[in-house]
Amino acid sequence: MAMHLLQYDRPGAARLAQALGSALAHICHCVRCNTFSETELCPLCASEKRDPQLLCVVETPADQLMIEQTHTYKGLYFVLMGRISPLDGIGPREIHLDRLMKRVDDDKVREIILATNFTHEGEATAHAISEILGQRGLKISRLARGVPAGGELEYVDGGTLAQALRERRHYGE
Amino acid sequence: MAMHLLQYDRPGAARLAQALGSALAHICHCVRCNTFSETELCPLCASEKRDPQLLCVVETPADQLMIEQTHTYKGLYFVLMGRISPLDGIGPREIHLDRLMKRVDDDKVREIILATNFTHEGEATAHAISEILGQRGLKISRLARGVPAGGELEYVDGGTLAQALRERRHYGE
Repeated sequence: MAMHLLQYDRPGAARLAQALGSALAHICHCVRCNTFSETELCPLCASEKRDPQLLCVVETPADQLMIEQTHTYKGLYFVLMGRISPLDGIGPREIHLDRLMKRVDDDKVREIILATNFTHEGEATAHAISEILGQRGLKISRLARGVPAGGELEYVDGGTLAQALRERRHYGE
Repeated sequence: MAMHLLQYDRPGAARLAQALGSALAHICHCVRCNTFSETELCPLCASEKRDPQLLCVVETPADQLMIEQTHTYKGLYFVLMGRISPLDGIGPREIHLDRLMKRVDDDKVREIILATNFTHEGEATAHAISEILGQRGLKISRLARGVPAGGELEYVDGGTLAQALRERRHYGE
């Protein structure tokens, strides 16, 4: 990319440099949900249309965006900006769990939705959060695991199918 | 395949023809679960190690095999050998729902697990079965839908994510 810009698009490179510099100068973290924001409080946290009783915990702003794009979630978020990963030396302290605790204590949150990834690190993170928040009498839920939408059994891996069978639900629920 | 066999492997073609003929002559449907079987009662239905209270309804023998390969299911099966598909003229009569009813009435089945695909036809089939069996006081469950095992939110489609959010479950359940 650097070669292309230098050879074919020097004005574009200048604009990119400026945009990057401006982003670095203006984008900080929302004081409430920890996501990237140009304002102290991000537009989502500032909105009065969101349900303050629901708090969805995600690993990254990209995950938050994915959930927003489903247009089905009306609560608020907390963005960890990472995941617990002991091999990389990332523990509960590095992923702002203290700030999450404060956020939960401050506010009228009633349900925490753990929406970390279903990787080992994501599961460890979800477990750590549930351990800490479990004593606070909050409802703690986790995204459902199972067969993806439109999925056919023949093309689903064994691990997913075993999970879907184990976590089967009452029909019509 | 035909070209290859005729040109390079004529003895193989003869063996294949014989095997196919023998399969056609000997493979019929299990009288109990309707899957392909060489005996009147398939080995699975004849086994005493399976739990007769659980009955998993699948569309095809391939789906049954997929579930068997997870090594987590200990109940019995009923194989529909198809799915309801009004556009192809396939209704409840064509997929042996009457035999399923009889199978359920005959025996000590207590839970029906609907494991049809999550396609339109599979969902319609699950719905039809639940409508008919619902009056019999049986527990009717469906495979869980959601994020696949090991899944990361960034790479999951919106429909699946919306579903996983809607069907979120109490953490630790």
